[in-house]
Amino acid sequence: MSPPGPVDSIDLQEQRARLAALDVPDVVHELGRLAPTGRAVAFRLLDKGRAVEVFEDLDPALQAELVASLQGEAASIFGALDPDDRAALLDEVPAGVARRLLAALAPDERVATASLLGYPEGSAGRRMSPEVVAVHVGTTVGATIDRVRAAGEDAETVYLVPVVGDGLRVEGVVSLRRLVLSDPATPVEDVMTSPATTVHATDDAEDAANVVRDGGFVGVPVVDGEDRLVGVLTVDDAMRVLEAEDDEDSARTGGTEPLRRPYLSVSVLGLVRSRVVWLLMLIVAASLTVGVQSYFEDELAQVVALALFVPLLIGTGGNAGSQAATTVVRASAVGDVRTGDVARVVGREMLTGLLLGITLAVVGVGPAILVAGPQIGVVLALTVVAVCTLATTVGSSVPLLAKRVGIDPAIVSAPFISTFVDTTGLIVYFSIAKAVLGI
Amino acid sequence: MSPPGPVDSIDLQEQRARLAALDVPDVVHELGRLAPTGRAVAFRLLDKGRAVEVFEDLDPALQAELVASLQGEAASIFGALDPDDRAALLDEVPAGVARRLLAALAPDERVATASLLGYPEGSAGRRMSPEVVAVHVGTTVGATIDRVRAAGEDAETVYLVPVVGDGLRVEGVVSLRRLVLSDPATPVEDVMTSPATTVHATDDAEDAANVVRDGGFVGVPVVDGEDRLVGVLTVDDAMRVLEAEDDEDSARTGGTEPLRRPYLSVSVLGLVRSRVVWLLMLIVAASLTVGVQSYFEDELAQVVALALFVPLLIGTGGNAGSQAATTVVRASAVGDVRTGDVARVVGREMLTGLLLGITLAVVGVGPAILVAGPQIGVVLALTVVAVCTLATTVGSSVPLLAKRVGIDPAIVSAPFISTFVDTTGLIVYFSIAKAVLGI
Repeated sequence: MSPPGPVDSIDLQEQRARLAALDVPDVVHELGRLAPTGRAVAFRLLDKGRAVEVFEDLDPALQAELVASLQGEAASIFGALDPDDRAALLDEVPAGVARRLLAALAPDERVATASLLGYPEGSAGRRMSPEVVAVHVGTTVGATIDRVRAAGEDAETVYLVPVVGDGLRVEGVVSLRRLVLSDPATPVEDVMTSPATTVHATDDAEDAANVVRDGGFVGVPVVDGEDRLVGVLTVDDAMRVLEAEDDEDSARTGGTEPLRRPYLSVSVLGLVRSRVVWLLMLIVAASLTVGVQSYFEDELAQVVALALFVPLLIGTGGNAGSQAATTVVRASAVGDVRTGDVARVVGREMLTGLLLGITLAVVGVGPAILVAGPQIGVVLALTVVAVCTLATTVGSSVPLLAKRVGIDPAIVSAPFISTFVDTTGLIVYFSIAKAVLGI
Repeated sequence: MSPPGPVDSIDLQEQRARLAALDVPDVVHELGRLAPTGRAVAFRLLDKGRAVEVFEDLDPALQAELVASLQGEAASIFGALDPDDRAALLDEVPAGVARRLLAALAPDERVATASLLGYPEGSAGRRMSPEVVAVHVGTTVGATIDRVRAAGEDAETVYLVPVVGDGLRVEGVVSLRRLVLSDPATPVEDVMTSPATTVHATDDAEDAANVVRDGGFVGVPVVDGEDRLVGVLTVDDAMRVLEAEDDEDSARTGGTEPLRRPYLSVSVLGLVRSRVVWLLMLIVAASLTVGVQSYFEDELAQVVALALFVPLLIGTGGNAGSQAATTVVRASAVGDVRTGDVARVVGREMLTGLLLGITLAVVGVGPAILVAGPQIGVVLALTVVAVCTLATTVGSSVPLLAKRVGIDPAIVSAPFISTFVDTTGLIVYFSIAKAVLGI
């Protein structure tokens, strides 16, 4: 066996060569697959320039972890980030580290970063680029291009140039493409798009990002309460916001908290933490099903056959409810459905559930009668219609009502709907059984 | 009552004024909320120029519907679309309509569109922009800007200019931003990013779009099998691809087919169609639970108390399985987990399930003993540990194995996992009960 020292250094050289051969996005993915110590070691093996590029593209949670282990180098990497990326990172690190990092910044950079931190978490203001090239409405195309060139690398975005009037009010926007294609002597007013679509700094970041995506914009100007330009939300800012929101919605639809970092970089205990509270809440809710069945224990003891169909019926109710909840939550996330549409949506879903229930009853009544006899067959058919209608009604209304009172609809979606439908579905089932079977 | 004619025309004037006051993205949303006839009427009320902008941003399914009702005007709107949007629309319309639309195009536009249709559905080639400004590696920055200006409105993308060598091989890329910031006399070779990240035209469109998002690129060059430049996948193409994929994953995770159009534009029968096949398949799968319970009917009749906990136990198994499936499907969609990671992921999930099960057992065993007595309390505690471990193992392995054999992991996720865990969970439950209770 060789002594550990030299072997380790050969391993490190190999790893350095392997990382050097990868694209930046691939390095980012590689780092996301390592445990924290391995990640810190691998990060130190990167060239200075690439290290900053890689760092920029890491999830803020991983950035925060690296910053803690990097000590002195952290300040220089932090200084190389864009203000919005800095604000996102500062949200993740302890207050002491945040103060140290901010103190090491150049004064103007500190102002730009601090201005973002003044907007509420989750707002468009937090995610926008404050370093924007904007020109006055009286300028020419040529002068605008000169401004873009003068701002150079300092401006985070130059693809969208806001055109402002007095008091920084946004009069229009002009894309870099349009500037390059136009005659330099033309007044910028003649080539700008006006009125420009803008968003407010306090708008929800997801809503603002949807505006960028739906319009196919390279960015939209962000304005404050007095309609003054304060930044631009660029298309890549928007993509990141939407990816994070999709992560969150997808996790909560599945009954877990979002991980907010790559799956393989999360420890098993981290996975347990993201799920255990949900499971506990759901099991407490599910204990209602025990209560309902205890209440009907006499009927169960009389007709044990009733118990055979419980998993099938509540499973079907759960599935129908999940379908409705998933569809409505997604429609609401992409803006196809608004909170004012509750009545219309729930009406459609109720009818959909009724039709689904009738279809399942018609298809399933034959086999059910063969297995369980005509009387229980009738009970099952009636129950499936009632449970499906109930499930789609609850599955569509609860998320929309939650949104109306300011709760993320994804939180109250599939798993909670299933559990609720389990309990109410059992009551419906046993009540129908009592009536039809006369027990 | 006023006669219907004048009232209708007043309504139309009102609607025209209302639509004229909205931004293009808002008009797109408005149209997505109408029934087909209302949508066709509203669309005709738009000004010519805005009509094309609105049409571009509609879902291809709605575009196809409008094209059918627009007759003669359809050809001119179709001609104003970008080639990739045209290709997406042609996938949606009947073959006869597609031929008519293609025939009405100018010859070079027809070639650009037809070239996209040569790539497989769902590939990057289908979604890229083929009308690209590219320059030879020997060019200067000034000459490159002149090329961009000459291409003008015809090029769909000028923010990313591929730099090619002999045989159209991509040597690097240069952004419009970098071109504007650089001295016109500089050789483009000195300012380009090289080697450039590229994708293959036959790559999965989702994978290619993830490359654009993860790298924060304005676009990536698309190359053919011989590494020749054939187009650019722009950031807004990428955003649309990812939105459609998220729609699909979200729908299938909830056990429905994706609607592929705004929720409110889908009829109730359309909603039923998107869900009924899933519900039928799931109910057939769930009928296995009836079989399992029939098999243990004697034990159930002996200890009716066992039946009381069935919904709670299978609900918990279903929730733990959904959590694992949702997390793993999402991690796989964003590229954090690859098919080669199956063993590592399943090992982590098995351990996670075991820990979750132990936690639930420890927290729940007290109340269970109080409600059902010590013996059934022990049965429940053992079952919950076994079911949680089983659920996370199945929930993580099935989607990854599905992906390995080319099936969309979202298809086999939450609802199927729940149903499978319901059946196996019942077997586990009754087997443990038989052993512990000695029945």
